[in-house]
Amino acid sequence: MDRSKDIQNDSYQVILMPSGRRGRVKRGTDLLQAAAEIGVELESICGGRQTCGKCQVIVENGHFPKHGISSAADHLSPPKEQEISYFQEHGIRGRRLACAAEVLGELLITVPEESQARKQVIAKAASDRVIEVDPAVRQVYVEVEPAILGDPRGDWERLSAALEKQWGLRGLSIDSQVFPHLQEVLREGEFKVTVTLWQEKEILRVQPGYSEGIFGLAVDVGSTTIAAHLCDLRTGEVVATQAAMNPQVRYGEDLMSRVSYATTEPQGLARLNRAVIHTLNDLAGKVTSAGGITKTDIIDAVIVGNTVMHHILLGINPVELGRAPFALALFSPLDLKARDLGLGFNPAARTHLLPLIAGHVGADNVGVILAEAPHEQDEIMLVVDVGTNAEIVLGNRQQLLVASSPTGPAFEGAQITHGQRAAPGAIERVRIDPKTLQAQFRVIGCDSWISPDDKEPVPPEAMATGICGSGIIEAIAEMFLVGIINANGLIDPDSSSTSGRVRYQGRAGEYVLVDKEYSATGSPIVITQNDVRAIQLAKAALYAGTKLLMANRGIERVDRVVLAGAFGSYISPFHAMVLGLIPDCDLENVVAVGNAAGDGARIALLNISQRQKAEQVARWVQYVETPLAASFQDEFVAALNLPHASDKFPHLEQIIPNGLPTSARTERRRKKDRPGGR
Amino acid sequence: MDRSKDIQNDSYQVILMPSGRRGRVKRGTDLLQAAAEIGVELESICGGRQTCGKCQVIVENGHFPKHGISSAADHLSPPKEQEISYFQEHGIRGRRLACAAEVLGELLITVPEESQARKQVIAKAASDRVIEVDPAVRQVYVEVEPAILGDPRGDWERLSAALEKQWGLRGLSIDSQVFPHLQEVLREGEFKVTVTLWQEKEILRVQPGYSEGIFGLAVDVGSTTIAAHLCDLRTGEVVATQAAMNPQVRYGEDLMSRVSYATTEPQGLARLNRAVIHTLNDLAGKVTSAGGITKTDIIDAVIVGNTVMHHILLGINPVELGRAPFALALFSPLDLKARDLGLGFNPAARTHLLPLIAGHVGADNVGVILAEAPHEQDEIMLVVDVGTNAEIVLGNRQQLLVASSPTGPAFEGAQITHGQRAAPGAIERVRIDPKTLQAQFRVIGCDSWISPDDKEPVPPEAMATGICGSGIIEAIAEMFLVGIINANGLIDPDSSSTSGRVRYQGRAGEYVLVDKEYSATGSPIVITQNDVRAIQLAKAALYAGTKLLMANRGIERVDRVVLAGAFGSYISPFHAMVLGLIPDCDLENVVAVGNAAGDGARIALLNISQRQKAEQVARWVQYVETPLAASFQDEFVAALNLPHASDKFPHLEQIIPNGLPTSARTERRRKKDRPGGR
Repeated sequence: MDRSKDIQNDSYQVILMPSGRRGRVKRGTDLLQAAAEIGVELESICGGRQTCGKCQVIVENGHFPKHGISSAADHLSPPKEQEISYFQEHGIRGRRLACAAEVLGELLITVPEESQARKQVIAKAASDRVIEVDPAVRQVYVEVEPAILGDPRGDWERLSAALEKQWGLRGLSIDSQVFPHLQEVLREGEFKVTVTLWQEKEILRVQPGYSEGIFGLAVDVGSTTIAAHLCDLRTGEVVATQAAMNPQVRYGEDLMSRVSYATTEPQGLARLNRAVIHTLNDLAGKVTSAGGITKTDIIDAVIVGNTVMHHILLGINPVELGRAPFALALFSPLDLKARDLGLGFNPAARTHLLPLIAGHVGADNVGVILAEAPHEQDEIMLVVDVGTNAEIVLGNRQQLLVASSPTGPAFEGAQITHGQRAAPGAIERVRIDPKTLQAQFRVIGCDSWISPDDKEPVPPEAMATGICGSGIIEAIAEMFLVGIINANGLIDPDSSSTSGRVRYQGRAGEYVLVDKEYSATGSPIVITQNDVRAIQLAKAALYAGTKLLMANRGIERVDRVVLAGAFGSYISPFHAMVLGLIPDCDLENVVAVGNAAGDGARIALLNISQRQKAEQVARWVQYVETPLAASFQDEFVAALNLPHASDKFPHLEQIIPNGLPTSARTERRRKKDRPGGR
Repeated sequence: MDRSKDIQNDSYQVILMPSGRRGRVKRGTDLLQAAAEIGVELESICGGRQTCGKCQVIVENGHFPKHGISSAADHLSPPKEQEISYFQEHGIRGRRLACAAEVLGELLITVPEESQARKQVIAKAASDRVIEVDPAVRQVYVEVEPAILGDPRGDWERLSAALEKQWGLRGLSIDSQVFPHLQEVLREGEFKVTVTLWQEKEILRVQPGYSEGIFGLAVDVGSTTIAAHLCDLRTGEVVATQAAMNPQVRYGEDLMSRVSYATTEPQGLARLNRAVIHTLNDLAGKVTSAGGITKTDIIDAVIVGNTVMHHILLGINPVELGRAPFALALFSPLDLKARDLGLGFNPAARTHLLPLIAGHVGADNVGVILAEAPHEQDEIMLVVDVGTNAEIVLGNRQQLLVASSPTGPAFEGAQITHGQRAAPGAIERVRIDPKTLQAQFRVIGCDSWISPDDKEPVPPEAMATGICGSGIIEAIAEMFLVGIINANGLIDPDSSSTSGRVRYQGRAGEYVLVDKEYSATGSPIVITQNDVRAIQLAKAALYAGTKLLMANRGIERVDRVVLAGAFGSYISPFHAMVLGLIPDCDLENVVAVGNAAGDGARIALLNISQRQKAEQVARWVQYVETPLAASFQDEFVAALNLPHASDKFPHLEQIIPNGLPTSARTERRRKKDRPGGR
């Protein structure tokens, strides 16, 4: 320990907790500056004017021989009127404003988390990664020289000079949409304003006086579902989340029918473009309203989507994505003005589009990679993002392969008789009793399991309106486990005799999942033979794509599987494995996450360096064209059947009656995942 | 002379005429490259592909001992098929394509003007300055690798790579509005396209195949008149010019009433803004249609205007310009997307706004300075730009003073009984017979003078609809010269008895300028006592402003006077001096130009370095606040009277009967300036 304070009387050791970073600073240095010199960045919007209160610290009193110092409050200059009144006004005790307190002796200082400049948030992804909050935009408070006669400069030049003098910002540009209000805002704030900066380059907004609050939108434009997360860009918190059906569905359910619509209908592309822009504006209105702000508070956005959604959003006809050689218009990331896309955020708001990977692998997949970070692992990771197409990522930090598999939209509830988007009322969980063949189920928007044995009346919010992706996977897996369908996927005529739950329309069987008493439509909800076939085709495509990448990489087993998808509910890893969606892997190491693409968008929204990382990764991953591989068709045909579940789960019989084998991580999001009545 | 060719067999001397630049180049170098090495830039769009034909040169045959070389056609590689077919197709003989011809011996080459990369055009300004054509945009032809399966790059990345490889252009960005058509254009041109670049930084347009033609718009937004010049940005030529009334006039004739309208009316600013944008779009439609192109061919624009027009154009409420300290929102030049202003040019078109000088001295005045270049002269120059306000520039390369004088719109025909904008039918020239007091006149749109003595019937286009700025100045100056008004500006009761041309409405006299037989309205066109007063006030304000600057600079005489103004017709220097608009100066050195502000916009449109020059000059000139100067009011009152013309022009009596004393430069634009019948 350096204890040379007796020799160097003009400098003192300061230790900052919890990082433990330490250094010597000159007597009289304020703590904001001292922390910066020691390498700990404190938050500050007002620039040391003792008004924003962002740089609060705690002075540890007493003698700390372990740290080699003796700290006391009187080792700092005493608080003056402004600092005292700040803390009185906010009812806070025992803290100091770092910008006001000058170092007069040895100090041990604790920097509370909220005062750290680059806050850390946990990414809501499988890997529980920590994301440093370092967004593309920030706010600074600045005091401008008032206009006087004889100074020909405009208000913008005066503001510009003040930003250079007070914050060292040079050569800033200003968005043309800021000009119309600049003079009014400066006068309203008596020439004190808060400026929102983009990448330390461009001024996006000027607000009167001291102002706090920057918000951004992370958006995943899926073929079926569009999800938007409103984030506080200072704290990193998700303020509100909303999802909506992609209204393009009315012009074609899968991607190729939309490509065809855009190409053949005279106004097709314009309609598809307007539909998605309209929905984005609508979602922006909803999340901001939920967060108590307005759409004009959105100052930055990150958008991901598959290649067709990406192109349509930009007004690019996706015709080339529908025919060989599947040429993208561009694959680079884009920095745009939101208004140039027709997005009604702040008039000067920015929008970032993550890069694409190849003709069939889009920015949504880049988002998934950002969120799950297989490129930062040693383990071989398989990440499957199940949407209208399935994107498959396989590998680790050495090499990452990516492919797209044409699963179709069955996993999203489309092409299923009673399928629906994940929304309140949709069945998301299913358990079938092996003896009675009766199903218990749970719908989105209600925490209780509904069982035909229940005597109590069913609350209206528990009534089923249909079945969504996670529900259909569980239902069919359970049907297989209890023997309603056999390994070929055929609804077994024998099962009909035992329970009356299976009935026939001509030669095709169907399973009555929900009786009409529990159905919001008044008609029973059934799983038909065609529904089973649709899921078989989808899962075979997914499995074949995975096997192709594994063969390409020369491996037979993966260490970890991440199941991603904007399903409303996480996929059950157990049922996914029963159905054969994914290759063999210890069930403990199979993790289901929700909308990983949206999480990736959120990560890129919160951290600017993740946008650069995204571009590097997008260019580094190796794209494997699945339809080109001769083995794909063979694997596809081989994967149509259902696997022998007992091979995978030798103790299945013991597991089933007790419900799912739980994994803390799998069940992270929903607590009540077991049927309540059992 | 270096005649070392015998020693250095692998290099030869090449002389390029008419510049006379010379240098040695290696054997086999093509002439395009050779010229570049010698420092003469030849035009090329196709980048040496022998297709654009822009780099044509003439090989001088024979022995040229004066130049120290012996040139002959066989000192160049013979033309091959593509070059031969190019010249055959275009019916050209005796020329070579520089990009195809390789140097094999000593050469004397003439570079025709059209092949020089930076063409020179004469600025249509008083100084006859030469402007080098070096605009902010240029076109390059590029051949792109077609898309193939296995290449994940997008078309944009392939185009980008081709631009780097073939033209050395790195780090280009591309306007988001280009994406929607990129793939179609590339395929239409079979992956050969012509790219329009802005400042070597951004791609504004991609056209299929080889394409030629870049156009820009230079605009002067005056309070009363908006003028637009469509320019060919490759040749520098003005393709078409159109002017229109500023429709904001309906919301207030002078600037202060528009400021008031914008401030007090709820939708005032939006209306004013839409009015000017609408007119700019309308003018763009007219000039492009006259030039045989469309609005989307406009890819760059430079706009000038006074400070109020500038702010309204940007959607900025001009309220601060109407009250002390007259703070501008900004005074820096601006580079914007035309679409962000609502301008319907090419979707990606750029717009540049020249800088402002001070609260009352706008970009129009910067345009005037660019056009007349007083900052490049040794002589003391006075430049007066007469619009709704008059801007006055005084000085030379040592120092330049600038002021704005509140003349009001009388010089533009407003506030005058039969005043009108300069448009067909407006009287622009007037001569009054000192004996009969009858006037001859000429209207815009007709080259003949109309005289009451004429026996022939008057053609319809010669009928007068009203009187415009240059007409009113001449009319009142002539009225003074022949004694209809006295030095106080009073219509002289005595003059009524002699001719019957002066009549009274109550106690106020009026002069009948045009009898009803020659008036398109069917009523006589008169100059009233109030009209004379309005002009007196305006000219006194102008003169007082000039005197203030002269006093400030400590001079009593100026060497040269430039009278600028968008009047439709040039002001007659003689009549301006008779009225006392300008201080004493040899009439030979008084020059009238038209819309110098618009000329300045055109110069900045054609030459990018002139935009930087404009910014430097705008910051360098010294602004003098006229209303602040105590002496201004004194000078104003003193200048209300008309000067004694005979003091200035002792031989006036001999001049008048013979018409105007002519000056070649003053009369440059219009040839028939004397009354034809005399």
